[in-house]
Amino acid sequence: MSEIEKIRIQESLQEILQQVVELLSKHQLVEGLVHKQDMPRHDLVETLVHKQHLAELQKKLDELHSADIAYILEALPLEQRLQVWDLVKVERDGDILLEVSDAVRESLIASMDSEELLAAAEQLDTDEIADLAPDLPHDVLQELMVSMDAQNRAHLQSAMSYPEDTVGALMDFDMVSIRDDITLEVVLRYLRRLGELPGHTDKLFVVDRNDNFKGVLSLERLLVHDPEASVAAVMAEDAVTFHPDDEADEAASAFERYDLVSAPVVDRSNRLVGRLTVDVVMDFIREESDSEMLSMAGLREEEDLFATVWKSIQNRWTWLALNLVTAFIASRVIGVFEGSIEKIVALAALMPIVAGIGGNSGNQTTTMIVRALALGQIRGSSIRKLFLKELGVSLVNGLIWGGIIGLVAWLLYRNAALGVVMTGAMILNLLLAALMGVLIPMLMHKLGRDPAVGSSVMITAVTDSGGFFIFLGLATLFLI
Amino acid sequence: MSEIEKIRIQESLQEILQQVVELLSKHQLVEGLVHKQDMPRHDLVETLVHKQHLAELQKKLDELHSADIAYILEALPLEQRLQVWDLVKVERDGDILLEVSDAVRESLIASMDSEELLAAAEQLDTDEIADLAPDLPHDVLQELMVSMDAQNRAHLQSAMSYPEDTVGALMDFDMVSIRDDITLEVVLRYLRRLGELPGHTDKLFVVDRNDNFKGVLSLERLLVHDPEASVAAVMAEDAVTFHPDDEADEAASAFERYDLVSAPVVDRSNRLVGRLTVDVVMDFIREESDSEMLSMAGLREEEDLFATVWKSIQNRWTWLALNLVTAFIASRVIGVFEGSIEKIVALAALMPIVAGIGGNSGNQTTTMIVRALALGQIRGSSIRKLFLKELGVSLVNGLIWGGIIGLVAWLLYRNAALGVVMTGAMILNLLLAALMGVLIPMLMHKLGRDPAVGSSVMITAVTDSGGFFIFLGLATLFLI
Repeated sequence: MSEIEKIRIQESLQEILQQVVELLSKHQLVEGLVHKQDMPRHDLVETLVHKQHLAELQKKLDELHSADIAYILEALPLEQRLQVWDLVKVERDGDILLEVSDAVRESLIASMDSEELLAAAEQLDTDEIADLAPDLPHDVLQELMVSMDAQNRAHLQSAMSYPEDTVGALMDFDMVSIRDDITLEVVLRYLRRLGELPGHTDKLFVVDRNDNFKGVLSLERLLVHDPEASVAAVMAEDAVTFHPDDEADEAASAFERYDLVSAPVVDRSNRLVGRLTVDVVMDFIREESDSEMLSMAGLREEEDLFATVWKSIQNRWTWLALNLVTAFIASRVIGVFEGSIEKIVALAALMPIVAGIGGNSGNQTTTMIVRALALGQIRGSSIRKLFLKELGVSLVNGLIWGGIIGLVAWLLYRNAALGVVMTGAMILNLLLAALMGVLIPMLMHKLGRDPAVGSSVMITAVTDSGGFFIFLGLATLFLI
Repeated sequence: MSEIEKIRIQESLQEILQQVVELLSKHQLVEGLVHKQDMPRHDLVETLVHKQHLAELQKKLDELHSADIAYILEALPLEQRLQVWDLVKVERDGDILLEVSDAVRESLIASMDSEELLAAAEQLDTDEIADLAPDLPHDVLQELMVSMDAQNRAHLQSAMSYPEDTVGALMDFDMVSIRDDITLEVVLRYLRRLGELPGHTDKLFVVDRNDNFKGVLSLERLLVHDPEASVAAVMAEDAVTFHPDDEADEAASAFERYDLVSAPVVDRSNRLVGRLTVDVVMDFIREESDSEMLSMAGLREEEDLFATVWKSIQNRWTWLALNLVTAFIASRVIGVFEGSIEKIVALAALMPIVAGIGGNSGNQTTTMIVRALALGQIRGSSIRKLFLKELGVSLVNGLIWGGIIGLVAWLLYRNAALGVVMTGAMILNLLLAALMGVLIPMLMHKLGRDPAVGSSVMITAVTDSGGFFIFLGLATLFLI
């Protein structure tokens, strides 16, 4: 029972992290003392204390699941991270490398020599090695290939040959396949001889003698049907299958839609080539949504929390540069109206409100559209309805919020005409925001780009420059 | 095989959607003709054509998976949605209601009378009814309760009693539990008698005679071990378990971490009370990340793509109001410096650049910190490291981008001092952005609020007002 409690999670994981850090810092303290003082009498004692802490830490690590060690490694600054990494048993290195984030994996691999990497990789399945491959030094990969048998080498090469976001890159080769002309009894005997099943085996794949996929036999059916029945009679033919070059998000949405645990991957000629499992799909979904979140703030990739200043700057600079350009354009729009601002300086104080609210409203529209596009819910005939709805929302919002802020401007500056211009500019900029909020993501989608990534910068750029232009333009026309 | 191809997805789903829409519009066309013209001779023919289209559509719908019908309903405007909904077989209503998004569910339920709702709900398991319950009219729910047997009513009440984001709200009651003092052979016979297993049964739960949880017997072990062995000898005791009041995201992260398909839910006294499965967890993860994405743009809840203008305004207004307040504050900061702007009107054109880049940089920092907080990776001792790193990044970025834009300002306005002030303001505002970018999410986390939701507005508010204040303040001090 204590085992169960131990694995009961997160909070206790954070406690474990705390313990690891304490043990590490005690260890470093002692090491510091040993280095500073050279008193031979103390030496022995301190080395003992020191060793004791390390042993305790190692014991703790040995008890933990690989995913939990990965969590601890990610939460530690580089120096402590590498100390813990050194204490992890060599035979677990591979599993842990698979679990950590890309940025942390890079830092761990950089600390290992070829031999250690080879030892780590040799513990893994070929599809797992394929996942690590992009981060492995070329010579290590070569040596690995040489050490493999022909079938595994072929698997590795095939797994590495698929682009990152395809089913082929996510699939594994651990499937149990059976023939359809045997009885369930024979299948049961076969499984007992196997001794264990690959993780996430909820169904066996049924093939004919040429490895052509025929259907699936779920463990459920295997268990509840008469053992004398034949596989062909009990199996299901209408299984969801994938091709290796199917897009991974489509496969993920099929897993969600049809509540799958595993599914066969077949090639164009219907031969069984691999298997996709729910754990991999779930990791993929998590990574996708994480990277979308990051890219919305202009972080190009997941950043190691303790990355160097220089690495962080490299990760973030494109976004800042792009925004600097759009901000500069908006600034030049204002520059055109400097004469008007000189005459009515209140314009300078009021203009960011028009631009800002336009940006917010546009981003709401864009977020809706991006989601609907991702779900494939927008078709030709519904586009006009969408435009009308968004324009309607903007018009009402413009009247309400523009009215309020126009009133405030009037009261603040005792200038009714200024208030009216303010209200008019808000309405127009919100309409612009609605128009572009629908148009920009739709256009990006049509051009085959991911609308989730760039739409937000573009809509903000348009509503900023547009907002300044509309407000200052109206003011120049009617107030000056 | 054609079945397999049919279920092979997304693209073809969009094709099906297209076909549905075409059949619907043909149907509407005919209906329109029938209504307009009252020629009795044509009547018959048109009614036939009309019926034929509906029959074709109905046949198509009957072939589809409930999740796919849900997809089609979500993609259709209200009127067409209800037409399709009417064609769906009554016994599938319940399943489909579970699959559609909250907003669409509301629109479907609004179109059904009590009897239809009762018929739909009666097809569902108690944990599924509990999911629908918040959307059901009170009298329907009452009637449902009355029609249930005592055990199901107890289940329903317990499922409804847990807060939305807990394991209790996600669990089901479809577990197969066995005793530990029997042999595998007996288990196998028991399963065959059951005839079928609940979905996602990858393991059986082992309990003693008082329903106390003892461990799990995976189907794998059941299949590969000698049938003569006892359950106690083969089962695993170190299973991951949850409590009904555990937070759902912690459970979800445990599912990801330990690659679970199903897990037992036990109460504080270790009695088995339910089961959590990966399909529910995956839906939960997807909904969480969706709602985070929506709330980042200030959409309070998932919006039906074809919601009315008024509904959309209600969904979006809080965010706009909040942003109007922060924009107004920034505007008043500028107001303080109107005298300076009157003297150097270039300040008005340059100030949005300082504010904007500060906001972008601050959002990058905040996004990093929010992620790290969500993963529980920030501890006391690493906070100082994080601050120093972010300040370092900002300093370098300020020097580079501030330097460039300062140079541009100098060249544009032939004013070296203005360029220096611009560079200085950029550096200071980026440092402010880094400071607040770390501080704001950490504070919100400490106060027990979700840092993902409000951090972005707050950081932008600070860097806007702060940026204007720093730039205009420096200009007033040194240039005027």
